Amino acid sequence: MIQSTSFLKAIQSAPDITPAEVDYVLGFFKKYSVKAKEHIVREGEICKQIAYVDTGAFCFYTLTDSGKKSVIHFAFEDWWTGDLPSFINRTPATTYWQAIENSEIIAINRTDFEKLCNTSKAFKAFYDLKTQRGYIKSLEKSALDKSESAEERYLRMMKDHPQIILRAPHYDVASYLGIAPESLSRIRNKIISSK
Amino acid sequence: MIQSTSFLKAIQSAPDITPAEVDYVLGFFKKYSVKAKEHIVREGEICKQIAYVDTGAFCFYTLTDSGKKSVIHFAFEDWWTGDLPSFINRTPATTYWQAIENSEIIAINRTDFEKLCNTSKAFKAFYDLKTQRGYIKSLEKSALDKSESAEERYLRMMKDHPQIILRAPHYDVASYLGIAPESLSRIRNKIISSK
Repeated sequence: MIQSTSFLKAIQSAPDITPAEVDYVLGFFKKYSVKAKEHIVREGEICKQIAYVDTGAFCFYTLTDSGKKSVIHFAFEDWWTGDLPSFINRTPATTYWQAIENSEIIAINRTDFEKLCNTSKAFKAFYDLKTQRGYIKSLEKSALDKSESAEERYLRMMKDHPQIILRAPHYDVASYLGIAPESLSRIRNKIISSK
Repeated sequence: MIQSTSFLKAIQSAPDITPAEVDYVLGFFKKYSVKAKEHIVREGEICKQIAYVDTGAFCFYTLTDSGKKSVIHFAFEDWWTGDLPSFINRTPATTYWQAIENSEIIAINRTDFEKLCNTSKAFKAFYDLKTQRGYIKSLEKSALDKSESAEERYLRMMKDHPQIILRAPHYDVASYLGIAPESLSRIRNKIISSK
């Protein structure tokens, strides 16, 4: 059985789940170690698992035609993550999923995920709720990214996801914000000197 | 009862829905006419309904601090739409939801939506499936928007959503692609002259 207090708490938060069903759900997951810089999935491969981040940090990115890295999002402890379009539709991933620190994930494969959704109402409800929340967050982010300046996006990231600034490389943070590393330095310096 | 063959088909596509349950679901919806340029929701208001687009077209946008319109997405016939974050969480909308043509929508309010999800398993499964699909599309779009050039984004839009080019104003299409109207003209001319 998986040993992780935070993962246990996450599963126990599923709507109307019983202690027996918690044990049943836990039985479908496996824990893996991932070394910093290691890729779990590369563009073009099928994403075979979705995972709960137990410890560590991940970056999802694409490459432009000229080979430039373009960061889409990050994932830290207590986040569910993976290339969902590839995982659900069994289509080639459009993103690279890479560890930016030595990490531990608790993962489920596609066949077991389907079996679990079909046999555990509580897990299915939990997944649907997480999906709705993820979708809502992604819609809110799209709207804000379109209306805010780079400095406003940086301040929102500081407030909502300080982990990104504390743990991700400067170049990746700039890419995530859609600005040049030099512009990120200017914004950081401006905010620090205004305090 | 709602008179719309396409809406009826949409509801009949819900997993394992019975004819009696189709009638039950239809009873919760109301049809409304919306005039071109009319807003259903403005930023800061609570989005009180989600809707099926029976006829017509809509644009979702935000305004930057300097009052510039920034288009997030469009919605046409047979799409489900609304400001989902505001609708689900009962929080102020972050987007403007505006008709770009005279349109007809088939809508459900928040209280009825909750009642319907709690009393119709088939409708809840239908909503969860639509949410998952919407989330997956939004993740795919985020990844592609980050890796593609403006011309590649335009070509993808031509392929996936030709309606946008055929029915939305030039200025709004440019805003949706995140480029200046002049750049959109250049891309269009280049594609036409290369044929």
